[in-house]
Amino acid sequence: MNTFLSCDWGTSSFRLRLVSRTGGHVLQEYTSPDGVQQIYNAYQQELQSSDRESYFFAFLNNKISAFSMQTDIDLDGLLLVCSGMASSSIGIKSLAYAGLPFSCSGRDVVFHFFKPSANFGHPLLLVSGVRAEEDVMRGEETQLIGVMAKIKDVKGNGMFIFPGTHSKHVAVQNQKISNFQTFMTGEVYSLMSRASILSKSVSSSDSQGPEMEKAFEQGVADGAEQNLLSAFFKVRAKDLFGKFNKFENSQYLSGLLIGNELGNLADESGNSVFLCSDARLSGYYSKALQILDIPSTVLSPELLRYAAVYGQIEIINQIEMHEKDIFLGCL
Amino acid sequence: MNTFLSCDWGTSSFRLRLVSRTGGHVLQEYTSPDGVQQIYNAYQQELQSSDRESYFFAFLNNKISAFSMQTDIDLDGLLLVCSGMASSSIGIKSLAYAGLPFSCSGRDVVFHFFKPSANFGHPLLLVSGVRAEEDVMRGEETQLIGVMAKIKDVKGNGMFIFPGTHSKHVAVQNQKISNFQTFMTGEVYSLMSRASILSKSVSSSDSQGPEMEKAFEQGVADGAEQNLLSAFFKVRAKDLFGKFNKFENSQYLSGLLIGNELGNLADESGNSVFLCSDARLSGYYSKALQILDIPSTVLSPELLRYAAVYGQIEIINQIEMHEKDIFLGCL
Repeated sequence: MNTFLSCDWGTSSFRLRLVSRTGGHVLQEYTSPDGVQQIYNAYQQELQSSDRESYFFAFLNNKISAFSMQTDIDLDGLLLVCSGMASSSIGIKSLAYAGLPFSCSGRDVVFHFFKPSANFGHPLLLVSGVRAEEDVMRGEETQLIGVMAKIKDVKGNGMFIFPGTHSKHVAVQNQKISNFQTFMTGEVYSLMSRASILSKSVSSSDSQGPEMEKAFEQGVADGAEQNLLSAFFKVRAKDLFGKFNKFENSQYLSGLLIGNELGNLADESGNSVFLCSDARLSGYYSKALQILDIPSTVLSPELLRYAAVYGQIEIINQIEMHEKDIFLGCL
Repeated sequence: MNTFLSCDWGTSSFRLRLVSRTGGHVLQEYTSPDGVQQIYNAYQQELQSSDRESYFFAFLNNKISAFSMQTDIDLDGLLLVCSGMASSSIGIKSLAYAGLPFSCSGRDVVFHFFKPSANFGHPLLLVSGVRAEEDVMRGEETQLIGVMAKIKDVKGNGMFIFPGTHSKHVAVQNQKISNFQTFMTGEVYSLMSRASILSKSVSSSDSQGPEMEKAFEQGVADGAEQNLLSAFFKVRAKDLFGKFNKFENSQYLSGLLIGNELGNLADESGNSVFLCSDARLSGYYSKALQILDIPSTVLSPELLRYAAVYGQIEIINQIEMHEKDIFLGCL
């Protein structure tokens, strides 16, 4: 079977793609805000009339039918691969995390295989996440497997940055994840700009210009050097003293947080830094890395857009190679 | 006039006291949650039928009448001294900040004196705050003046810590505030424990015990050493991995934030640290200073409770000494 359904399912987003396994071309794509959290909440509200797996299967059946209608392609019986939060305690089925070190080939992935059933007519490969001593991720490991398969100039070592609500810094040594850290950068930005006293001092805007850039740059420099709990309050002072307008101040706050996140990379000298960002954040993060004088390779946002797909293909290949019986009759 | 009305008016609290000027004894006390913010919001909602000063005066008249009824003491015509947020842009009247260096004697205070009028029968002394290059405070300067007047073993130098929603670190050199920094510790704790993904991993509790203390201690140590954006996520990991229960995790998060705030004091060697905390936070902060091996003098929470009153007395004394005509006929 040369095509499969790739599902990258986050806490607050759902992405379904029809993919050509050889070459990894995305033939069709369906996205929606139906994150795992929302489906889990709905499941809990409906008095748990069915078991959790069946509830999630029913949702997936609906989505695949809608996708089939939209594309006018028969998707019956195709393998579905799910990575991300679908394997968490609020997902289809809670799977244990893989440990460290974790091979970037996809060999060490923890997964569960569901054979096609009356409930759900597709074979389903559910991919779990990875844990460190004091950290967890679900989804970025699959993206990293995809990234490592696609980029050629990686010698198997580096620090891979995945910006986002919960930004991940993944350390790779000898083609294996040796450790990783989560930074709550995006979520803290959202809380501080919406719900804290600073909300009166910032306004987001799509406009750009030298003044906005200058405010971001100063934020990055301050955030990398200063204690964050104290630096936050400077956002208020800059408003009170008229140093920045509220739009510039929003850029300043954004810079503070990204600078604070990236600041400790400067200590990790000798570690090549790879920025693995989608289009939305790529500009901010690559600029911050420049300001902080941290040499880095910026991977294309286009590659990152489909990194989970490429990672899933590697995982399928590994499973087929090492545990062929699992897919017997399905691929 | 030996008695006056002391008002310590914060963003979210209102404290009115009848004070004996000589000796600084608090004879009667009235507190309510009528913070400046609430009165300002009410003023804005009532379509600004009166001007702002008159609106705030009407509120103060009501409060003083209630206080008089409650105590059965005639308070007519007594001097009212207000410090805190009452001099801010959401207070009675917006006053400019005093600059640095700022004498802890009260000599450099910026203030506005309202003579008794038809609107408000009391002479009113409104005390303004202090600004640094990139920071502001309103209220703590008056508390510090009170603290410095009361403690005898201060040689005029030190770092004075005022914990709270917006914790202040005030550096004093030669009896003058040379600089200060605000840490948003309390507000960030509130946001992270109520509104972030961590809210699922913490529960506050009044219970104490060795396990709770151990969690707080570990939080302080981690917070002092680690990047806060990353340390936050460990709260989630400790819940997922069952290392702490949600009550212990709440203590851990509290420790993380206080440790992160106080961590940089360790660098300020040679600077005596004075903890100026109310009863609510004194235990946490003094313990954190011990854990971080930062020698400190813990001032009594009882002193801090009335520090604003003592500071206001020093300010009255200074004004009377240097600008006697202001109080002519009022004191």
